[in-house]
Order: sequence, then C-alpha cells, then structure tokens
Amino acid sequence: MNNTVWMNQLSWVDYQTRVQQDQPPVLLPVGALEQHGPHLPLGTDGLLSSAVAADTAALVGGLVAPTLSYGYKSQPKCGGGQHFCGTTSVDAATLIGQVRDAVREFARHGLTKLVIVNGHYENQWFLIEGIDLGLRDLGPDAKLQVMRLEYWDFMTPDTLGDVFRDGFPGFALEHAAVLETSMMLHYHPNLVRMDLLSDDGPADFPPYDMYPPRTDWVPASGVLSSAKDSDAVKGKLLADEVARRMAEALRSGFERPVQ
Amino acid sequence: MNNTVWMNQLSWVDYQTRVQQDQPPVLLPVGALEQHGPHLPLGTDGLLSSAVAADTAALVGGLVAPTLSYGYKSQPKCGGGQHFCGTTSVDAATLIGQVRDAVREFARHGLTKLVIVNGHYENQWFLIEGIDLGLRDLGPDAKLQVMRLEYWDFMTPDTLGDVFRDGFPGFALEHAAVLETSMMLHYHPNLVRMDLLSDDGPADFPPYDMYPPRTDWVPASGVLSSAKDSDAVKGKLLADEVARRMAEALRSGFERPVQ
Amino acid sequence: MNNTVWMNQLSWVDYQTRVQQDQPPVLLPVGALEQHGPHLPLGTDGLLSSAVAADTAALVGGLVAPTLSYGYKSQPKCGGGQHFCGTTSVDAATLIGQVRDAVREFARHGLTKLVIVNGHYENQWFLIEGIDLGLRDLGPDAKLQVMRLEYWDFMTPDTLGDVFRDGFPGFALEHAAVLETSMMLHYHPNLVRMDLLSDDGPADFPPYDMYPPRTDWVPASGVLSSAKDSDAVKGKLLADEVARRMAEALRSGFERPVQ
Amino acid sequence: MNNTVWMNQLSWVDYQTRVQQDQPPVLLPVGALEQHGPHLPLGTDGLLSSAVAADTAALVGGLVAPTLSYGYKSQPKCGGGQHFCGTTSVDAATLIGQVRDAVREFARHGLTKLVIVNGHYENQWFLIEGIDLGLRDLGPDAKLQVMRLEYWDFMTPDTLGDVFRDGFPGFALEHAAVLETSMMLHYHPNLVRMDLLSDDGPADFPPYDMYPPRTDWVPASGVLSSAKDSDAVKGKLLADEVARRMAEALRSGFERPVQ
Amino acid sequence: MNNTVWMNQLSWVDYQTRVQQDQPPVLLPVGALEQHGPHLPLGTDGLLSSAVAADTAALVGGLVAPTLSYGYKSQPKCGGGQHFCGTTSVDAATLIGQVRDAVREFARHGLTKLVIVNGHYENQWFLIEGIDLGLRDLGPDAKLQVMRLEYWDFMTPDTLGDVFRDGFPGFALEHAAVLETSMMLHYHPNLVRMDLLSDDGPADFPPYDMYPPRTDWVPASGVLSSAKDSDAVKGKLLADEVARRMAEALRSGFERPVQ
Amino acid sequence: MNNTVWMNQLSWVDYQTRVQQDQPPVLLPVGALEQHGPHLPLGTDGLLSSAVAADTAALVGGLVAPTLSYGYKSQPKCGGGQHFCGTTSVDAATLIGQVRDAVREFARHGLTKLVIVNGHYENQWFLIEGIDLGLRDLGPDAKLQVMRLEYWDFMTPDTLGDVFRDGFPGFALEHAAVLETSMMLHYHPNLVRMDLLSDDGPADFPPYDMYPPRTDWVPASGVLSSAKDSDAVKGKLLADEVARRMAEALRSGFERPVQ
Repeated sequence: MNNTVWMNQLSWVDYQTRVQQDQPPVLLPVGALEQHGPHLPLGTDGLLSSAVAADTAALVGGLVAPTLSYGYKSQPKCGGGQHFCGTTSVDAATLIGQVRDAVREFARHGLTKLVIVNGHYENQWFLIEGIDLGLRDLGPDAKLQVMRLEYWDFMTPDTLGDVFRDGFPGFALEHAAVLETSMMLHYHPNLVRMDLLSDDGPADFPPYDMYPPRTDWVPASGVLSSAKDSDAVKGKLLADEVARRMAEALRSGFERPVQ
Repeated sequence: MNNTVWMNQLSWVDYQTRVQQDQPPVLLPVGALEQHGPHLPLGTDGLLSSAVAADTAALVGGLVAPTLSYGYKSQPKCGGGQHFCGTTSVDAATLIGQVRDAVREFARHGLTKLVIVNGHYENQWFLIEGIDLGLRDLGPDAKLQVMRLEYWDFMTPDTLGDVFRDGFPGFALEHAAVLETSMMLHYHPNLVRMDLLSDDGPADFPPYDMYPPRTDWVPASGVLSSAKDSDAVKGKLLADEVARRMAEALRSGFERPVQ
Repeated sequence: MNNTVWMNQLSWVDYQTRVQQDQPPVLLPVGALEQHGPHLPLGTDGLLSSAVAADTAALVGGLVAPTLSYGYKSQPKCGGGQHFCGTTSVDAATLIGQVRDAVREFARHGLTKLVIVNGHYENQWFLIEGIDLGLRDLGPDAKLQVMRLEYWDFMTPDTLGDVFRDGFPGFALEHAAVLETSMMLHYHPNLVRMDLLSDDGPADFPPYDMYPPRTDWVPASGVLSSAKDSDAVKGKLLADEVARRMAEALRSGFERPVQ
Repeated sequence: MNNTVWMNQLSWVDYQTRVQQDQPPVLLPVGALEQHGPHLPLGTDGLLSSAVAADTAALVGGLVAPTLSYGYKSQPKCGGGQHFCGTTSVDAATLIGQVRDAVREFARHGLTKLVIVNGHYENQWFLIEGIDLGLRDLGPDAKLQVMRLEYWDFMTPDTLGDVFRDGFPGFALEHAAVLETSMMLHYHPNLVRMDLLSDDGPADFPPYDMYPPRTDWVPASGVLSSAKDSDAVKGKLLADEVARRMAEALRSGFERPVQ
Repeated sequence: MNNTVWMNQLSWVDYQTRVQQDQPPVLLPVGALEQHGPHLPLGTDGLLSSAVAADTAALVGGLVAPTLSYGYKSQPKCGGGQHFCGTTSVDAATLIGQVRDAVREFARHGLTKLVIVNGHYENQWFLIEGIDLGLRDLGPDAKLQVMRLEYWDFMTPDTLGDVFRDGFPGFALEHAAVLETSMMLHYHPNLVRMDLLSDDGPADFPPYDMYPPRTDWVPASGVLSSAKDSDAVKGKLLADEVARRMAEALRSGFERPVQ
Repeated sequence: MNNTVWMNQLSWVDYQTRVQQDQPPVLLPVGALEQHGPHLPLGTDGLLSSAVAADTAALVGGLVAPTLSYGYKSQPKCGGGQHFCGTTSVDAATLIGQVRDAVREFARHGLTKLVIVNGHYENQWFLIEGIDLGLRDLGPDAKLQVMRLEYWDFMTPDTLGDVFRDGFPGFALEHAAVLETSMMLHYHPNLVRMDLLSDDGPADFPPYDMYPPRTDWVPASGVLSSAKDSDAVKGKLLADEVARRMAEALRSGFERPVQ
C-alpha cells in the first residue's frame, strides 16, 4: 500500500483501508495567498502549514488533506492588509463553508480525528465557526473530534529564546519576519530571496483599527518586522520542535473518545 | 436640545441636528450574554463596553448607539465555553449581518465617524467582516470611516503594573477576573457579589483547541483566573484611563477624511 | 439570590438555579431604532417593549432577556420609512438569524417558555421565520415552546374606548401617536417632549405601496397621527392592562407542554 | 403581434417591442399552494391573484408574468397553518430571493413599472424585503418602480357592505371564506365544491401565537370562517371592482418617474 | 373526487386522500422564462415540461405540482444568454432554495415519490443541489425518494432518427429548434409562429466560455439551430414517447423503497 | 525575477511586476478530492487540471493560481457518487463563494485575464454562478474577463480516434478511465497502480437520477469504464494537444477587451 502522508495521492481503496485499520488523524492545512514581503512567496502560509502537517503526520501515522490555499482577508496589523497586489483572499462565509463541509465529509468517511492546522493568523475564528457548524450538522452522536491549532503556538519559550538572542518580540509583528523566513529557508530554500530582505519594521500600530484601512500604517514592502537574522538552522530547530510537539498533542488530544 | 450621549433617547430631529452640525462620532458597543462566574452578571461585556463608550462619548461630544447585547459563541480559553447555562450567543453570520447593516445605515444618516467598541473577545473577527462587507456595500465613494477597538487595549502597561502588583499575567485568562470585576465594581457595584468570588484558576490550557469542547478543561465556576484582588479604585483607574485614551484615539483616528 | 427580572444582571449560577427550580418564562423584547417624530426618542419601540416585558415578568416570576434594539426596515405606512435620519434598521436575514440563534440557545439552557415581545410592527414576520427556523434546528423532540406577540394586541376595546373618546381610529396610523406617547409619558416622562408635538396627520395612504418609497406621502415630522391627547394616566391605564393580560396569556399559553 | 396579457405566451421579440413602445406595467402574481378547506383548491391564492392581475392588465395594456405559485409558510390565524397535508410552502429566504431576482431581471429588460400582486397574506413582508434588496442591487440610478399590493385592499367598504349584509367581519378570518369562494365561483366555478362547504368557524384566536403551532386552535377543515353565503354574482362584483380600482392605481401610482 | 392531475386544482382533502390511498408520484415541472427565438414563446420550457409531466401523470395516476416558471440564468451555448430582453432568470441560491423547500414539504405530506421534471438545460445542477440539501434536512430516516430527469433524455435514437432524416445533430444546439418547436406545435399550436422561423444557425461555439458573455457569438434571433423541419406530427411522436417512457421510469425507479 | 508559472511561489513584488508589465493570464485550476478507482489517486482531478494549466501557462507566459482542491459533490453517473470513502466534497454555496471571491480579488490586482480550468465534471455550473456573481460584484466597468473551460473539451476527434482505436465511447463514462489514466501515466506515473486496474464497466445508467442515490448502479470499484488500454504515450498525446489548443484559446479568447 502507498505509504505517503498526502491524502490526494492515495486511492480511495487505500485511504479506506487506512481509515478502517488505523483510525489515523487527518491534518487539514489552511494557508493564504498573501504578500510576504519581497523575499518570501505569496503562498508562504500554505507551504508552511502543509510542511509542518506533513512532518507531524509522518511522526504519528497520519494523513494530510489538500491545503486550503486561500485565507481570510489580510489585516494591516498581522498581514499587511488587502491593498497589496497578489494577496488573494476569501470572505468569511466562504472559509466557514469550506471547513463546515470538510467536517461533515470526513465524518462520513468514518474518521474520528481531524486536525485543522492553521498557518494564517486571520483564519482562526472562521475556522472555529466552520468546525462548530459542521459538528452541529453532524448532531450529538458524531464520533468525529476536531483539533484546531496555529502551528506557531507549539514553539517553546526556550526555543524562541535561542532564535531571538535579544529577546523574542512577540508573535504580533512576525509576518514575513524571522520565524517564517527561517522555516521557509529550511523547507523551501529556493523560494527565499535573502538578497531582497527589507529593512522595514518594526511597524508601530495604534491600539485600534481603521476601515477603510490606513495603508500608510504599513511599510511599503509589506514586511512588519525585519527578517535579517533568519537562517535555515533556526528554521530546522523551529520546524522540528513544532512537528514533535504537535505529534505529542495529537496523541494526548485524541486519547479520549467524544464525551 | 437633549444633551444625552444615548442615541436611543434622542428624537430623530435632535439626532439629525447633531449629525449635521457636529459630525459627532457614534460609538456602537458590542457585548455578549455570557457566564462571568458566580460573582458577575451575564451581561458584563455589554455593560462594560457601553459604560466606557458613554464615558468616551462624554469627553468628545459623541453618541452611543444601542448595545449589541448578544455576542459570538463563547470559547473555553477566553470565556469558558458554550456549555454554561445562561451564555446566549449568536452565529457568525448573525453578528456579521448586524454590523454590516449598521455600517450601511449610519452612512445613510450622513455620519462620517463610527466606532465599534468591543467588550467580548470572541466578537473581534466577525466585527471585522461585518465592517468590511458594509463598506463594500457602500462602495468606494462612501464618506464613513469606521474605527474598531477592544477597550482593554487602551490600558497602559503602567496602569496594569499598578493594578497587578505581582506582575500582569496577560489578557489571556482575564475573563471574569481582576480587570472586569474591578471595572464592574466601579460602574455597577450593586451587580457584583464579592462574597461569591471563586478561587478557581488560573486555568491551564494546551496550545490547541478541541471540538466538541473539553468542558473539563474549564473550572466549574467559569472563572479562568481569580478576581480576589479586585476593587472599585482599580476599576476607576482603569475606566478613566480607557475613556481618556479612547477619546484621544477618536480625535487622532478621525483626523483625516477617507483617503 | 438576585431577584431582578433583568437576565443580564443575573450571574449564570443564579440564572441556572432559576431555570431549574421555577421554569420561568423568559421574555425577549424586540424593538427598533426608528424615528418617532420630534417628541419621542428613536428608541421608543425597544423602551416600550422592554418596559411591558418587565412589568409582565414581575407578575409571573419571569425574566427579561436583553432587548433586540434594531428592528426591520421602517415602512412609510407604519413607521414613516427608511428615509428618516436616525432610523437604523436591519435586513430580514439579520433579524431572522438573531431570533433563530436565540431560540436555539434558550433551548440549550433547558428553558421551556420563551416569549418574543414585539414592539415594532415591521418585525412581525421575520420573528415568525426566526422562530420557525430555530425550532426546525432543534428538531421534533425539543421541549421549548415559544409565544410571540405584539404588546398592543393586549389592549381591550373598552380601554381603547376610554383612551380615545371620539372612537379608536385603529392601530394603522398609531406610530408616534397617542398610544405610544401616553405609554412613554408613563414609563419615561423625561424622554417625551410634549412641547414639540407635531400637528401632522392623520396620514392618508393609497391601498398600495411604491418602491422606492414615495417620501412625500409621509409627513415631514414622521408623525402619522396626532399625539396631542396623550397623557401619563392613559399611559398607565394601557400599560397596566397590557402587563396584566400578557401575564394571563403566559399562564394559559404555556399550560400545556409541547404536543 | 400577439395581444395576450400572458408574458410567457409572448415571444421575446414581441415582448421587447411591447416594452420599448408602450412601457407597459408587468404584473407579477404571487400565490401559495395552501389548504383552502374541502371546497376550494390548493392553488386558490395563485389562481385568484393571477386572475385579477389579468383583468387589470387587460384594462391598462399591461402584461402578467408567470405566477409565483409557492408562498410563505401558512400561519394558523390566516391560513390554517403548516400542519395541513397539501400546503406546500417556502422559507423566507427563497421567496425573498425570487422577488429580488425578478426585480433585477425586469429592470434589465428596460421595464419601468413592475407590480407585485399578492394573493396570500403570509407573503407580504417577504415581498417587501425582496423588492428592497432588488432595488439595492440596482443602485440609485435605476428607472424601475415597483408597486406592491394585496388585491383585497381594493375592495371598497360599500362593496363589502353589499357582500356581507350582516356587516363585514373583517379580513382577519377571510381564509377560504366568502370573499375567496365567491371570486373562485366567478373565475373558476368548476374548481369549487359548494356541496362540501364546511360549517366551521368563525375561529377564535387569542392575541398571541404559539410555536410549535397549536393545531387544535384551527378547525379540522381548515376553514376559519363560513363560506356559505358565497356566490358567483358577489364574486364578479368583487373581481370587477378590484380590477377596475387596481387599474386606476396603476395609472396614478406610476404617473411620476422615479424621484 | 376530483380526478385532475393538477395538484393546485385539488382540495387539500382530496390531495390527502390521494396521497394516503395511492401513494401517487408527484411531478414537479421546472421551466424557465427565456427567449426561444421569434417563433416560440418565452414560457416554452415551462409549458413543455408541464405538458409531458401531465401526460406522464395521466398514465401512472400521478399528480403535477405547480410549475417553477423561472429558471437558472440562460447561457449562450444552450439558451442564448442573459442579454436577451424577456429572459427572466433566478440566481442559483433561489432555485436551490425552491427545490430544497419543496423536497421538505412533500415529505411532510407523507409523499414517497417526487419527480423533478426539468425542461431547461441550465437548471440541472441546481436542482441536484436542492434535492441533496432537502434530503439532508430530512435526515436519514426519510421515506421520500426523488427522481430527477430532463424530459428529452427519454427520446430514443430510433425516434430521433425518424425526426431528423439527415441525422440527429445532438441536443447541444436544440434550443428553440426542431424538438421544442415540434412539441410546441403538438401541445400549443396557437403559440407557435411558423411564419417567423429564423434561418439562423447552427451556431458555432469555441470549446470555452467567456464572461461577460460574448453576445456576438449568438445569432441575433436567439435561435441556435434552424427549426424549419418542425411539425406537429413529429411533436406528437416525441411527446408520446417521452410520456410513455417516463411512465415506465416512474414504475421501475420507485419500485424499491428507500435503501 | 522568478520565472515560475506557480503564482504561490512568486513574491508579491514579482507578481505585481508581471501583472503590470505583461498582463499575463492567470489560470485557476479546479479539481476535486474524489474516488478514481483502485488505480488512481483521490486527487486526480486537481492534479490533472493543474498540470494542463501549468503546461498552458508555460506556452503563453501565464501564471497558475493555487488549485481549488475540493469539488462539488460527486454524482453516480459521472464520478461514482458521494457514498465512496475518501470522496470529500463541498456544497454548491462554498464552491460558488470561492470562485466569486477569486474573481473579485484578481480584478483588484489589475488582472484582465482569468481562466478557470475545470477538471471535475460536477463543478461546471457552480463555477458559472461564481463567475457571474463575482462580475456582478465588480459592476459594469470592470476590466477583467473570465474564460471558463473543461480541459477535455480541447481534445480533437482525430486525437480521440487515435486513442480509442475501436471508437471513442464519449466522455460520459470517462471517469477514472482511459483518458484520465493515460494523462496520469504521463504526468504522475508513480501515482498510478496499473496492477490494480478494475475490469468494471462500462456502467449502464437509466435516463434519470434517483436520490438518495442508488449505490448499486455504480460498480463497487468506482470505475465506470475500463482503463485497460491506457498508457503514457496516449497521455502525452492528449496532454500536449490540450495544452497547445488551450494556449491558442487564450490568445484568441482574450484578443478583445471587455465589450
């Protein structure tokens, strides 16, 4: 049988066998098509969430479903905003619907463990609504449990301390910055242009949002915080920790069946 | 003319005069009907967001629209979760629709400054979507600008240091805890039952969510962090700072017309 | 325990105790933010529906949930129309969704008696749809029953005869007119400007509607029928009768469990 | 050229010629598939609304679009309720969508006068929402005006006095009663079973609604008020007056172009 | 009892008796209001689908529900496109909702056999979605089965060979062409203008679609393929075969109860 | 500058440069996660539509946006049906929304040429609706044109004659059969298990559909027609022709700006 982690490369017969024999977790990566400065590609969020999902799946015998490649609308403070060319986003209803449908379908397969692996900050609450509505559709007797996570929440303070020698400034401005750039250098070095690093940032935002967005609050490069200390070694350190700790989370999170 | 800040107490003639003469900001508080432990009332989020909105409006000559009293579904890590009796929430589509309609209607009035004052963490992203869709409905020539904020983001580190002598543990578990309880003691002392303070917390959550929610992750009281050091003096300190700094934000945020 | 009728002032623990011990009816007032002439405030419909709901709740040991303050779009013949500044309305889908969600949530609390108290004529059919969809969501085994009413339907011909010495002209034009003004003088005298009564009306409408609305069919004041004979005594007479008869309706209407 | 009033019997070329040359009003009848007692057919509301629309169109050179044959959910007090076999209704969103789409499409044709002719009481507010959303889609420069009416509102007190010798009891219980039965005897005598008239009614309802509906409030026949004095002469009297006065309304209502 | 096949002409009592005694299939025709060239009326698709539905119902003791007269948006390659005056279409959501509601309602009646008879090519996939969502609403225990068909798929190659002596060119361009025109000559000869036959066609389309549609791809008449060999004899041949074979399909398709 | 065809591998700066300098077409592949028998992977439709899109883009200097990997619900006659384990589909509203959002976003980028490359038969009409609604959102002045196609419509009769020596049986049953298997052997030979070819088929379906679907109409393998004559040479022949002719279509289809 095909031992790949990628669900879309399995025949339905092999997938069914896996589901019935092993009750594997299926990981559904969710990304975005969003500006990540001049040095990282538009697809960074989907590439990273699927990469850590694949590493995790390899550790626990799981599978990775096809990535949702279009995310919720980019916001100035976390992704630069919707005014950038190339950022290609969906409305809330679309993302909610996509996740709701996925929950219903994976439950029909007989799956009991679905993991939504989010790689784009703006997606979070629409994933929650999609899961909630999907489980409502299934009714109270469903056997499916859904775990939802942002992969960067599995980085420990120790590791962040190693990566940021001058102190971790927080996740707030880490868009197209050291964490994402380092992980891209680890997973997809050929897609990173270190020669085009922007000096922009750190961006400074007031404690409120304005709509229509104030585009002049955001550096023209789209980079909210400098990525200049990024390297592949840091990327590997982060990626390995995330995958290892996500694997542990899958083991403990699904230990109990539905209450 | 009626000098109240409460829009629903104005006649349409007085409201129209205010809008046409002063271009006042209108503040729309958004709360929730959600468990806040045994010592705070279900309506805490709406009561606090409307109170700070009213204080702010008084400082800047603004108006306060009727509160949206039902918020998005409570999540275990920030509000305890939907399994509590009394928590009464709306789906994403409902909250998005309510805000979208409000944006369209206030623009029709000729208003140029709308401020969404959020008092319930879970609401944030659905407010964003509602504003975005409302502005899309209005088209590119609309004169209305919308500010969106969570009121607690206007507390400064200095003040939080004064309130939390042993160090501010962060907003994460501040549900029905020191900040909200102190502010309720300031604004609505008769609705606080200090004799019923729970000793629960601080709650300890893993870096992922599970659905259906793991109700045993949440203290039975619904309190995520102890409120025992709360008092009205701290509440006044926080409330005054929030109103003062929100007033400044309104002045600077709306300085420029739509780009 | 807190004996208030206002649900948002109860802690979840007190609310749960009330629901489990007494199976109280919960009354959900629904209003509007709508022009009511130069003499009544924009919030009249929500203020009156919540006031009669509170009086009724006090008589039967019920509770009053937070008012839905924004109603369906104002129509020329019953509310003057959407062209007035200050009238702030929602689309059908929003109001339907709000009620649908409320039905589902109150059923989850274990409540068996929900009463939708409508104070804005235009809301009626969207409340019906919201209730219907909410009960459909709950399925055939739900224990919740929902009563829906317009509060003015509890005024008897006798009382209306007392109020209107020259004969009751019918509810059709009673927007911002004698009934509402008198009840506001009873409940909220400080919000009524009797010095600003309009002489407009009675408005005369053809037996059809036109869209876009013919704004010249509606008096410029927004008053469809004169309020000049209003007084607080009449208001109390009406309010007392409505509350008393609504209380009787709650007792008889919920006598039987779901069929 | 084909001189029929029925739009669906015209070729598009003839329809286009009519629209461009005469700017005729198009009447869109809206009915229901709903129990009307043992003596009237399920399609009564659609049959009557299309019949009066056709008579009116003949008087003013108008056209009649295909009837919307499925109406909003039947309510106990006006149509008996949804528990009757044969009653086949649509959700609010469906009816709203159907009308919204129609408004947009007729405007695209270059039509300036659309008349929604309602024959089912429960439809009214969803037609209003459909028209409002359709006109919103079209934007402020649209040339289309929409008239909306219930055909029975064109019966004068004089005529109702002639029909009801003992006094007109009001429209409230006139479901499957004298007015509809008489008009059916005029338009479709072969579809009326006068031998099966029910003696039920008048039904007596409290001033509130209960959900799930109390089916025992409604006579088992579905008839809310006796139809025993119905005859075709009364039907013709009513039908002629309705058509004549609707024709006048079309002439005066569309006299002015969009404001 | 009334022996008509037309459901809207039956009283609810007669309908209920039919449903309970005979478990008849109910056929729901779905058409469109769409240009069909200068020689056929706008309502052709609804007229033909209801005519074959009625013929079929007569053969199997079935009933015909009121036609859905407005179809999905016309496409250039199959119906000429939305730019024609008179074509009056609905959005996907509207048609899906109409069918979903119908499925739910007919199941409530106790019906077990519903047949959607499509007469407008563009409707197909939205009917499928409507049926799927309706059955999802009903849940897994529903007794209703739904058959869905396009009536022209019941024409056999032999008969098409008889009709097209030079070879059947395929259904692709058969809009307002020989098949529809012949069947209209059989069912509604007075609505066909053979003197206005267009010589247009056959239209020639590339293997892709363009949006906004390229209106110059479509003949100005709206006719995609000549109807000049149409006659009523061919129409009767086709109509009889369709009705006979649809009747057989109903007998065999509903032989088994729901799995 | 990065010369890849894959949009998600470009930085936003490079993408913007490409869009502004070359006005490249962007191709959006749409697939499905659907059973394709025991010998082909679940992701076949997305893999093939993105592969032909990439080949086409290479010929015309275009770009390929991330694939929509989840398609509309599988139907028995074209994809085997929804009862297969592994088939993971979306509701109509989700797919419509995804395409509508994409149309709006690509227009915002300043793109003028968007090509929807469909690889899953069931998607077709929901793509049409998504494009139509997206263009409606953009309004009449938009510069974006959208081409929509099924890639297999670019195979010529000559080539199909070469592939099927005994005559091309038509696209109807070509699910997981010779065309798809040969193209997968060309593009992804390591994902094809020729040792697991099913002998099933050709499936024989009646001229109607049944819902709930009759799963016994579909071979247990999910294969509707044998793939036994598939090989990589045929796959290359087909793939090359499709890419070449799609490239021609892009050149001629977008020759003219929006009308």
